[in-house]
Amino acid sequence: MADLSRRQLFGVGAAAVGGVGLGLGAGAVVARPAQADVVAETVPFHGEHQAGVETAPQAHATFVGLDLRPGTDRSALVRLMRVWTDDAARLTEGRGALADTEPDLATAPARLTVTVGFGPGAFRAAGLDDRRPSWCKPLPPFEIDKLEDRWNDGDLLLHVGSDDPVTVAHALRVLLKAARGTAAVRWVQRGFRRARGSEPEGTTMRNLMGQVDGTVNPTSGSADFADVVWNDGAEQPWFAGGTAVVIRRIHLDLDGWDELDRPGRDEVMGRRMSDGAPLTGESEHDAPDFEAAGPGGLKIIPEFSHVARARPMAPRERFHRRAYNYDEAPDGIGVSDSGLIFVAYQADVDTQYVPVQRRLAEADMFNEWSTPIGSAVFAILPGCRKGEYLGQGLLA
Amino acid sequence: MADLSRRQLFGVGAAAVGGVGLGLGAGAVVARPAQADVVAETVPFHGEHQAGVETAPQAHATFVGLDLRPGTDRSALVRLMRVWTDDAARLTEGRGALADTEPDLATAPARLTVTVGFGPGAFRAAGLDDRRPSWCKPLPPFEIDKLEDRWNDGDLLLHVGSDDPVTVAHALRVLLKAARGTAAVRWVQRGFRRARGSEPEGTTMRNLMGQVDGTVNPTSGSADFADVVWNDGAEQPWFAGGTAVVIRRIHLDLDGWDELDRPGRDEVMGRRMSDGAPLTGESEHDAPDFEAAGPGGLKIIPEFSHVARARPMAPRERFHRRAYNYDEAPDGIGVSDSGLIFVAYQADVDTQYVPVQRRLAEADMFNEWSTPIGSAVFAILPGCRKGEYLGQGLLA
Ligand code: HEM
Ligand code: HEM
Repeated sequence: MADLSRRQLFGVGAAAVGGVGLGLGAGAVVARPAQADVVAETVPFHGEHQAGVETAPQAHATFVGLDLRPGTDRSALVRLMRVWTDDAARLTEGRGALADTEPDLATAPARLTVTVGFGPGAFRAAGLDDRRPSWCKPLPPFEIDKLEDRWNDGDLLLHVGSDDPVTVAHALRVLLKAARGTAAVRWVQRGFRRARGSEPEGTTMRNLMGQVDGTVNPTSGSADFADVVWNDGAEQPWFAGGTAVVIRRIHLDLDGWDELDRPGRDEVMGRRMSDGAPLTGESEHDAPDFEAAGPGGLKIIPEFSHVARARPMAPRERFHRRAYNYDEAPDGIGVSDSGLIFVAYQADVDTQYVPVQRRLAEADMFNEWSTPIGSAVFAILPGCRKGEYLGQGLLA
Repeated sequence: MADLSRRQLFGVGAAAVGGVGLGLGAGAVVARPAQADVVAETVPFHGEHQAGVETAPQAHATFVGLDLRPGTDRSALVRLMRVWTDDAARLTEGRGALADTEPDLATAPARLTVTVGFGPGAFRAAGLDDRRPSWCKPLPPFEIDKLEDRWNDGDLLLHVGSDDPVTVAHALRVLLKAARGTAAVRWVQRGFRRARGSEPEGTTMRNLMGQVDGTVNPTSGSADFADVVWNDGAEQPWFAGGTAVVIRRIHLDLDGWDELDRPGRDEVMGRRMSDGAPLTGESEHDAPDFEAAGPGGLKIIPEFSHVARARPMAPRERFHRRAYNYDEAPDGIGVSDSGLIFVAYQADVDTQYVPVQRRLAEADMFNEWSTPIGSAVFAILPGCRKGEYLGQGLLA
């Protein structure tokens, strides 16, 4: 039981289990693994669901949106999915891919995951638009959006994550080479979090604004997580075990944020910057009291704070956030060009994600310091068993 | 003695010493440190030399070239150096900088180093051109160069390295904010190597071509290293303890390289891709025999292989290489845009680096797959003691 729970909790493979003492529960502070384990740590590729969603976030992730080349049809997609499946299965085990010209770079998987999604164009190309989940389309426009087409949409998503940046670069190249004849790179978003081992496992990440980011999230391995994230196939039976991902590239105005003092920042978010506790609580995982009022009658957690607006107003309005920082070269004027690759997983975008995003777009004090510059939605394919390929339930 | 040697060898601070069993000598395979040590590991900022040169390369490094704003004079440079020195000393100890708006991001130094260099423009601005080392100027042009101005030169160099990418981003932002009034970002080059712990310490890195890259290098902590790398102040007394850095951004044609088979690659480099051994030897650190000939009378290590051309032809033609991989978003056509941030340290560029670069430019089979697209030379200032600031010997 303990064994099962900790596997589920962190989504790691057998190689990681030995010698790693983990507490249970999202907030528990747990021992750091010894480094010798880190390199060999693998996350199983095969399973009911794709890896890289419930997996505890690796230090590095690259998200690539691809456009199918004109003329790509269902059989071309099948060929690509067969190769990607085989490549991903090998690479995540620390072996070179079949056509790997640099197999020596494959030896340190460091929890490598490869996660594949379909955008609307993939269904169209396959002549299977009637099997597209209805939410698999661009988000509606929001007033806060300043979307740049170079970060939007795509027919395919390739998401590669690992605790080792060389492993990410190598896996990505292998997979993009395999796709060369079928799809062209549309956008690449490279994200990072703290290095593996920099913090106890289970620590909520701080983003580049210093905010404790990711506190309120379904717990990996729980029934709640499954309910929120994994699609049950009610609308599209082939999609059972899949999930929907929303990827928003959100530029953060760090310079503007710098001008806010700590109390101001706390008010904007509704949580304390110092430790992530709600303004009505003592520690990070305390339940916020959105009704509590101060002496003047004003809510302690301001009504237009980020968390007051983002919290679920209906039971289904929840998702799993798994964001990465980005930090690009600034232009000559600014000193940084940073933000969040905001990544949210849910069974259904329309009922779970959109109402929250709409509320935030309407009124969220934090909008003054955050600007969505890219947006994409993909259907993350259900997982596959050995001998199957990703997307087989749809394409076969 | 053992204690001293391992400190020198890896250039790590006291926090790292406990519990880490290290072998001696560059080729030794040594135990991996426990992860709990990694986060707290610090590299002393103060000393005879700046850190980040002799320090065993961290997983992440960002190199920033800056241009001084018009009107910047010696006293403005002194002010900047004072602030940078104070900020760097704090950050490398895992403390927030004085004016740090996100001190919570400073807590995991993970061997953070900050290394500062002056380009020719800094000497000019300070009115101290007569104190500029004579080699502190752009390299001569080479026929192989396809330099793009956006990667060239700069008045100042800021080099931030750490095993944690969030730490790099935060430190960089703090330091660039401090420079805002004095200097503007000219270029940013972000590099990576394997995550800390992915390989035993002392393993030579493989670059994105899969080559074992960095075998022939002076051993950190040795008298040889000091002789090759640290300037003795003979030309410019204030510069004793400094070093010269050459930063070449070299694009690698991974697609073309893919078309070469293993024996072809081995010939081009003069070393085996599989393990980095010279073609005349058995293992990585064997001395190559450049005279040995095969049955047909041809040299076993081809005359125009990379190592045959790069090896020293005179005793001073040596330097310390400390390269990083880069991997940028490909354009729509290619599948990757990768290369090496080639970084070489030596006491004198003209006598040590230029002759080798000239030989390579004249004839090196590897030129077919590698193209220099950026080039910069900086004088890495001598280190400073507590209470002093970087560059004090020049500017005070
Ligand atoms: C770059 C932009 C954003 C940043 C920096 C950010 C940051 C944060 C932070 C610090 C918290 C509080 C701690 C936590 O529970 O994680 C939070 C909560 C939350 N955020 Fe965001 N957020 C961003 C954008 C978004 C977007 C676009 C959405 C969805 C449309 C969203 C949805 C949520 C939700 C659902 C919560 C939890 C609310 C609760 O139930 O308490 N956030 N965010
Ligand atoms: C992206 C471009 C380059 C790549 C991928 C590369 C790769 C390599 C490799 C794999 C080796 C053999 C192993 C080793 O000793 O590290 C090597 C050796 C060497 N390279 Fe490069 N190199 C590049 C550019 C340069 C440049 C620009 C220089 C200097 C001008 C240089 C100087 C050397 C030297 C001095 C050696 C050692 C030669 C010896 O004494 O055996 N390399 N390089």
